[in-house]
Amino acid sequence: MAPARFARFAVVAPASAPGPWQPIAGGLTAPQGFLAAGITAGLKASGKPDLSLLLAPEGAVCAGSFTTSLVRAACVDLCAERLAASGGLARAVLTNSGQANACTGERGLADSLTATAALAERLGLAAEQVLICSTGVIGVPIPIDTLVAGLDPLVAALARDGGAAAARAILTTDLVEKQIALEANLGGRRVRIGGMAKGSGMIHPTMATMLGYLSCDAGVPAEQWQAMLRRVVERSFNAITVDGDTSTNDTFLAFAAGEPLDPEHVAALEAGLTAVAQHLARAIARDGEGATCLIAVQVEGAVDEAGARAIARTICGSSLVKCAIHGRDPNWGRIVAAAGRAGVPFDPQAVALWLGQHQLMAAGQPLAFDRLAASHYMRDRAAGTYLGSDPASGDTVAIRLVVGAGPGTALAWGCDLSDQYVRINADYTT
Amino acid sequence: MAPARFARFAVVAPASAPGPWQPIAGGLTAPQGFLAAGITAGLKASGKPDLSLLLAPEGAVCAGSFTTSLVRAACVDLCAERLAASGGLARAVLTNSGQANACTGERGLADSLTATAALAERLGLAAEQVLICSTGVIGVPIPIDTLVAGLDPLVAALARDGGAAAARAILTTDLVEKQIALEANLGGRRVRIGGMAKGSGMIHPTMATMLGYLSCDAGVPAEQWQAMLRRVVERSFNAITVDGDTSTNDTFLAFAAGEPLDPEHVAALEAGLTAVAQHLARAIARDGEGATCLIAVQVEGAVDEAGARAIARTICGSSLVKCAIHGRDPNWGRIVAAAGRAGVPFDPQAVALWLGQHQLMAAGQPLAFDRLAASHYMRDRAAGTYLGSDPASGDTVAIRLVVGAGPGTALAWGCDLSDQYVRINADYTT
Repeated sequence: MAPARFARFAVVAPASAPGPWQPIAGGLTAPQGFLAAGITAGLKASGKPDLSLLLAPEGAVCAGSFTTSLVRAACVDLCAERLAASGGLARAVLTNSGQANACTGERGLADSLTATAALAERLGLAAEQVLICSTGVIGVPIPIDTLVAGLDPLVAALARDGGAAAARAILTTDLVEKQIALEANLGGRRVRIGGMAKGSGMIHPTMATMLGYLSCDAGVPAEQWQAMLRRVVERSFNAITVDGDTSTNDTFLAFAAGEPLDPEHVAALEAGLTAVAQHLARAIARDGEGATCLIAVQVEGAVDEAGARAIARTICGSSLVKCAIHGRDPNWGRIVAAAGRAGVPFDPQAVALWLGQHQLMAAGQPLAFDRLAASHYMRDRAAGTYLGSDPASGDTVAIRLVVGAGPGTALAWGCDLSDQYVRINADYTT
Repeated sequence: MAPARFARFAVVAPASAPGPWQPIAGGLTAPQGFLAAGITAGLKASGKPDLSLLLAPEGAVCAGSFTTSLVRAACVDLCAERLAASGGLARAVLTNSGQANACTGERGLADSLTATAALAERLGLAAEQVLICSTGVIGVPIPIDTLVAGLDPLVAALARDGGAAAARAILTTDLVEKQIALEANLGGRRVRIGGMAKGSGMIHPTMATMLGYLSCDAGVPAEQWQAMLRRVVERSFNAITVDGDTSTNDTFLAFAAGEPLDPEHVAALEAGLTAVAQHLARAIARDGEGATCLIAVQVEGAVDEAGARAIARTICGSSLVKCAIHGRDPNWGRIVAAAGRAGVPFDPQAVALWLGQHQLMAAGQPLAFDRLAASHYMRDRAAGTYLGSDPASGDTVAIRLVVGAGPGTALAWGCDLSDQYVRINADYTT
């Protein structure tokens, strides 16, 4: 039995939307033409919703990103192969929660094929146009008859406002649903982006980790869409870490379908996509097991953006930094030590460091600072009662590290490491 | 204030000595001609011993390994430069505990130079023959006058049996001293190897982590000695992990001085050096903050030894694996998931996995196994009451993972992750 998770928990505030983008209600089905559904098919012993469906409009293109783990689930192989074979054409994605379908051998692939074929028939699609994601316990097969029996009611439930039900049905140990929608007027035309995700970072290998989905009602050619989404994923899902335990099932799927977008608005669209993906990624980090706050690390002055992100993510992933923040302890040596082992060149003599508005280092050397005030900054941040002026929102502890005068800047997100995390993960299956 | 560490704690049993090697009493000063001392100079507020000295016989050669962190302490730079300049000739190493002398700017180097020059004068050596290691809090300068005032009593305390005092004076948050000595008859001649270390793995960036020292009374040419020690370090200190937080000060120094060894015994010597270094490395992992047991992971069948070690070390470093073992939870999916993200190619369909004598996987798929018995294996291991027949000794939880039919085999060591670890590291400086 998993022990109770922290009860006090704030949903991450919507990303401060960039440029023309405004938050709107809804999630995946906010963009025009997208339908979704979520039902209880009986795959989870708990009786919670466990089968989810997203149906994109005709002509949709799809970009996919998948776990880099060598040990990956059958459904991940199937998604990757179908998208590669079709050049990014897909219409529907089925998600079952409860069983990850990883380490299930040949039966795993057979079950993925059965499920997508049965769904394709009901939707009047080719099996190759249907994708499948699975999340749950590793090594346990999907009760495939139960899943197939759930497909008729699932298709019947498809609705214009089905995004919220779909977002609920993909959850496993998550404390909260994670969805968002943004809207912008681009050249006189409304464009909407929706998104949903599940997972508490890369910290549930037995519960199949992170799944992310995005919908957009502007048409973008498949190749361009995939290139955009690669950049978006780097700046969002690939910029979070909870404990570095990459899952066997991590998947992000992004669908676009609609009138073609005027090329002059492509940059604005990418900014909106990035905001949606970053919101979902931050929500996943904030929902990290046992976490009491979000940690945002901005690294500036690195040789390039990838280097800055590597440093930022190493800091976010350091157990010692995470413990220090959990203890509201401004133990800055750990932040610099983590940066030093990130494998990215920089000049230690150029380092400057801030915790919120408190500057802790300049020119590679410690500064005198008010330890108590810095500790209270973290305490108030985590409690959501901080009244200061640093730009991070909500319950976010903000770290800013300058490592030189280079052009590389990047943000990464993580969460603190609590004794609750250990209890949750020590007692999971027994 | 750091909270109390776990009280129940077993010193790691001496490595089962390979071939002709037998454990003997003593540590660094067991080999002939080596002198050592440890005293209280007043560098630590606690009043515990804090200044340590090893003096090697004339003609000694020295091999050094240092942290790969970009942010490294002044003393590390000084050691590395002196050994490079002299081709591995050094006679003495001074160690101060209490202050790490990292992130201390120009003053850090000046203090290292002052300390080694003052000690060299008292020993009748050139400053370049003297090395220095520092361990303690980052960003705080050494009280250099206090250190220099301690040099006369330190040199006066040099003794043939000073190894134990030296081993005590290098400790910071360690719960136990870590020293060992082995002896062998090689071609009718006694050869001895001694060693000492401090640290609880790579988990104390503010307390300057791992220091290791080795002495040997057989003469080996400097280049050959350095090449041997590079292999030894890969198979010992570079095969442990506690939480991946590489320190700014990690240093390993190995001295050899004595009659030249007959070349036919060089392989036997290397086996002894490896056993000493592995003993110290395992003792460091076992002393990991909050740890209740040692974890030993053997990976077999990889493409090469380095690949096997990378997989083994990734498993040892997985927070989820560490939590599962702390909870005595045979949650094998986490072990395979960690292997999958190690960045080393293998065939997931070839994977076989054992926890102690319990086989959990074969041919990439889960086997039915007795969960309770597997859980009790871990419980009894950690309590030191295990009566089974697996080869790991003492309070060691043994994991064996076969990833194919390749020739690469390696061992790595770590420790479990407890809620105590979080409490210790959340409350460290405030």
